[in-house]
Amino acid sequence: MPSTLGPPLRCVDSLPAIDLSSFRPTPDSVPPPNVSYQQSQLQDAPVNYHPLNPFTFILRAALIYSDKLALAHPEGKHSAFYTYRIWAQRIQNLAYALIQAGIRPGDRVAVLSPNSPMIADAHFGVIAARAILTPINTRLTSHEIAYIIDHSDAKLILVDHEYSHLLPTSKVRAVVCHDTGRRGDPYEEFLSSGRKFSRERGWAGLDVETNEDTGAVLCYTSGTTGRPKGVLTTLRGTYLAAIANAVEGQINRQSTYLWVLPMFHAAGWTFPWANVFGCATQIILRSVDYPLIWKHLLHSNVTHYCGAPTVQIGIVNDPAARPLTRPVTAVVAGSAPTPQVIEQLEQLGITPVHVYGLTYTYGPFTRCYDHPFWSDLPLTERARLMARQGQSFATAQEVRVVYPPKHDDDQDMVDVPKDGKAIGEVVVRGNIVMKEYFKNPEATRKAFRGGHFNSGDLAVMYPDGVIAIVDRSKDIIISGGENASSLAIEQELAGHPHVLEVSVVARPHALWGERPMAFVILRPEFISKWAMDHVAFEVELKRHARERLPGFACPEWVRIVEELPKTSTGKILKSSLRKMVAKL
Amino acid sequence: MPSTLGPPLRCVDSLPAIDLSSFRPTPDSVPPPNVSYQQSQLQDAPVNYHPLNPFTFILRAALIYSDKLALAHPEGKHSAFYTYRIWAQRIQNLAYALIQAGIRPGDRVAVLSPNSPMIADAHFGVIAARAILTPINTRLTSHEIAYIIDHSDAKLILVDHEYSHLLPTSKVRAVVCHDTGRRGDPYEEFLSSGRKFSRERGWAGLDVETNEDTGAVLCYTSGTTGRPKGVLTTLRGTYLAAIANAVEGQINRQSTYLWVLPMFHAAGWTFPWANVFGCATQIILRSVDYPLIWKHLLHSNVTHYCGAPTVQIGIVNDPAARPLTRPVTAVVAGSAPTPQVIEQLEQLGITPVHVYGLTYTYGPFTRCYDHPFWSDLPLTERARLMARQGQSFATAQEVRVVYPPKHDDDQDMVDVPKDGKAIGEVVVRGNIVMKEYFKNPEATRKAFRGGHFNSGDLAVMYPDGVIAIVDRSKDIIISGGENASSLAIEQELAGHPHVLEVSVVARPHALWGERPMAFVILRPEFISKWAMDHVAFEVELKRHARERLPGFACPEWVRIVEELPKTSTGKILKSSLRKMVAKL
Repeated sequence: MPSTLGPPLRCVDSLPAIDLSSFRPTPDSVPPPNVSYQQSQLQDAPVNYHPLNPFTFILRAALIYSDKLALAHPEGKHSAFYTYRIWAQRIQNLAYALIQAGIRPGDRVAVLSPNSPMIADAHFGVIAARAILTPINTRLTSHEIAYIIDHSDAKLILVDHEYSHLLPTSKVRAVVCHDTGRRGDPYEEFLSSGRKFSRERGWAGLDVETNEDTGAVLCYTSGTTGRPKGVLTTLRGTYLAAIANAVEGQINRQSTYLWVLPMFHAAGWTFPWANVFGCATQIILRSVDYPLIWKHLLHSNVTHYCGAPTVQIGIVNDPAARPLTRPVTAVVAGSAPTPQVIEQLEQLGITPVHVYGLTYTYGPFTRCYDHPFWSDLPLTERARLMARQGQSFATAQEVRVVYPPKHDDDQDMVDVPKDGKAIGEVVVRGNIVMKEYFKNPEATRKAFRGGHFNSGDLAVMYPDGVIAIVDRSKDIIISGGENASSLAIEQELAGHPHVLEVSVVARPHALWGERPMAFVILRPEFISKWAMDHVAFEVELKRHARERLPGFACPEWVRIVEELPKTSTGKILKSSLRKMVAKL
Repeated sequence: MPSTLGPPLRCVDSLPAIDLSSFRPTPDSVPPPNVSYQQSQLQDAPVNYHPLNPFTFILRAALIYSDKLALAHPEGKHSAFYTYRIWAQRIQNLAYALIQAGIRPGDRVAVLSPNSPMIADAHFGVIAARAILTPINTRLTSHEIAYIIDHSDAKLILVDHEYSHLLPTSKVRAVVCHDTGRRGDPYEEFLSSGRKFSRERGWAGLDVETNEDTGAVLCYTSGTTGRPKGVLTTLRGTYLAAIANAVEGQINRQSTYLWVLPMFHAAGWTFPWANVFGCATQIILRSVDYPLIWKHLLHSNVTHYCGAPTVQIGIVNDPAARPLTRPVTAVVAGSAPTPQVIEQLEQLGITPVHVYGLTYTYGPFTRCYDHPFWSDLPLTERARLMARQGQSFATAQEVRVVYPPKHDDDQDMVDVPKDGKAIGEVVVRGNIVMKEYFKNPEATRKAFRGGHFNSGDLAVMYPDGVIAIVDRSKDIIISGGENASSLAIEQELAGHPHVLEVSVVARPHALWGERPMAFVILRPEFISKWAMDHVAFEVELKRHARERLPGFACPEWVRIVEELPKTSTGKILKSSLRKMVAKL
């Protein structure tokens, strides 16, 4: 297909290919006189009410920073650079194309794509068409994808060419994107089908959704057990969560955000909208490629990126890593960053911001807020404080840690004491909690029992009101009747100088019921040292553990591995490790 | 009264008096175990919905930064310093005290006070009691104050001791505050009356307002003609406007905000809540005192303040002014800053942020957004761009400039061309537009005609979508049939090196209908030069004007004055000048 492509459609090629710093708005450029970002459809709505809708962020950004670089896709086979004005136009075209293709308010539009301009477009264009965006994880099997398409009842699928073979042969219309940004690309032709209506009607031709509680995004959870579940979020929640992420990350018009996190995961934690709310520039990378990440960290004025600790480990240990001359913020979620990672990030000039959340909470719901006096503390102590999951996010309600309710009644939610010891479940409520499990009222009812969303994460609360996750309830290891936190064990083992990454799960034990088993990736420089004698390393690591952990929490078995099974966001799949353990 | 005061009530005196930089949270301080900032009253509300309410900001700030300095009142006769924890407690006490005093949901609670801890408390405590805060301008006459108390039907008045003599002898209960923060002060005793309930019930004992469209603040506009009108805002609007101000000003936990603007004016443009949303420290000054402002700019780590251009003129020209070593942001509203002020601010290390708004729009509704290429422009050109009122604010809908509608129908709202020339009226809509004129449906209907709030400000729109106010419709001077903008004339006259401040109004003229008359305050160093020969200065200024303005816009009369009549926020009262002119 690329060989038959026509000339570039828009200004794509007239902009520099890599050196983003030379991209500057043209002072004297004047928009065509009929360009308007107005939506004047709310004739009957009150003057003083507009439904909260994250899609409106693009209208404002395109109005204020029309000639600013909005979306850079420098590393694709065909690079593309879109200003806010041009990007807004593409989004408008997409909305009209979807409506022309028969998409009606509330319909689901699926997208199966790595990070690309198309999936960025979809985060706005699908919502502008009043449809529900249904992003699909690209690592799923064709079987799982078929299930999601079927369950969501998607009316149309936007699919990246590398993943189109995973689609079921169904009657659902698929629009394939070759990620070229050029004429002849089926996705570009699809956009063109909306252009006629864009020209005639503009933004004013697109009806505004008047109910802000309407569905916005339908994300399917990876589902470590059973079928994936659809998590439906709302326009209001997405608007408020996106603003919170812009506020907490201090993303503004001076920011450049590098896409390391996949946009399909928990709708990219709402950063696709947060970045536009802040009028920032976004750089898209199709995959997590550490040398490419460093190329842009060093040369493209990147100020922000998000990633799980395992991605951060990859970044700080890449050979291209060198100290940055400009402040960069790394938002870390998925699990707590270790002291090693924190130290390495800081030495490179990268400030880690530790947040905690779930797909059910639009991503981040808490943040570990720093205090001035922390800077006087030794690193290990500071890292211990920074590893806690923190307190409620900018637009969240308070987070609680409670003993499990006895009945489905709020009265039974009893907070654990703020002693940093008593373990309870993290429960949350408020505007950045999902609307529902799609088509599953029973699961919704169960998740919302006690008037809160029940996270399934076990935590303690410290006297300063900060929560710290102890473990997922299913990851707790019951060793000789004691509850051992796999996270706490991992944190101690990660402190061993030869350990790059470690994961701990329960393994059945005849005497003790369960005992911890550790899977370890060695630091590259120590691989050869232990290559011929894994037993000696096991002895060494157990010695390290015994000095730091109670007996019941010391790993009974240690296994050196080359890699760990991970989700698309780099979260370690303990379910896979447990399956492996079951076969031993 | 101060002589009979008892010992300090709380930690007030144990904290340093002036040197705010030495105020640090105590790492090992632990809140009492039963402190909770939870509001769990929304039993029947959905898990995923919480009504937007700016009062909740204090709960989150007190949870995260409990031992941080929240409110500093260093310059009162009795200084006071409150941490977030203690301030939140005082707010809770106030809410319970109000409820005990018979205040019911929706009741108005008036406050007549300069900037003080009491009026800061009231911005949260009155809303926590589900009442409507009614701030009264301290510069009003007792007659006007009586009218507002009567019209708002206020059930209780919190009044600063310096203004209690202005209160009508009515049956409305007044709580007098001597601004001491100490036992024996009637306001402190009033707070104490709520403490018993605070202890017993905590935050959980205060019902949450479930409807976010409920009234939050009732501000009376200064009313240059006729009776003052009550502008009612909502909880939702205040929440969203406050977040927008925190976002636009980049107010966060590293910020220290200096109160120069009166909190009673348009509810302090929502900064009382924006600062708490950002978990910032606020420094309170009872009045606009330039030496005191400089003391804190230089020594108290101030990062933000707000003020009209006339206040900025006072700040930059104060003898204490010297370049600051730390970035300070000055939010400027009320009228456009002149190139002189911009240059002087920048030379002192203060970055002006020019915003535009009205009491009806919770304060700022647009901002003049800067662009990177501006830094390459000469100051005069940059100042010309910065003097424009800009584009829609973070949580605002788009602003329009339209020809007046022929009928009360949206269809008749026709946008002026984006040519920077055609003059229309600024109209806005969306979440940060007032709820209504209180008890005045006819005025509300008129203000909302055409489906927008009609601002009464005349503006042009430039090709880049930026609006620039030409004048208030009533301030336009119709000179020889031409429309002369008093603002444009003022901007040119302010460029004369001897002019400190200038205001221009229409004066009737036998031949031309109207002609501009200029009132000028001279720069101190030039006062003596012209003292004995005002006519020579008039000749000189008219020469300056003729080189820059069309004949019909040149002032026909020039008057040197010592001061200009101003509102409490430093806005020049052109109505007073017109009255003066009418007597000439």
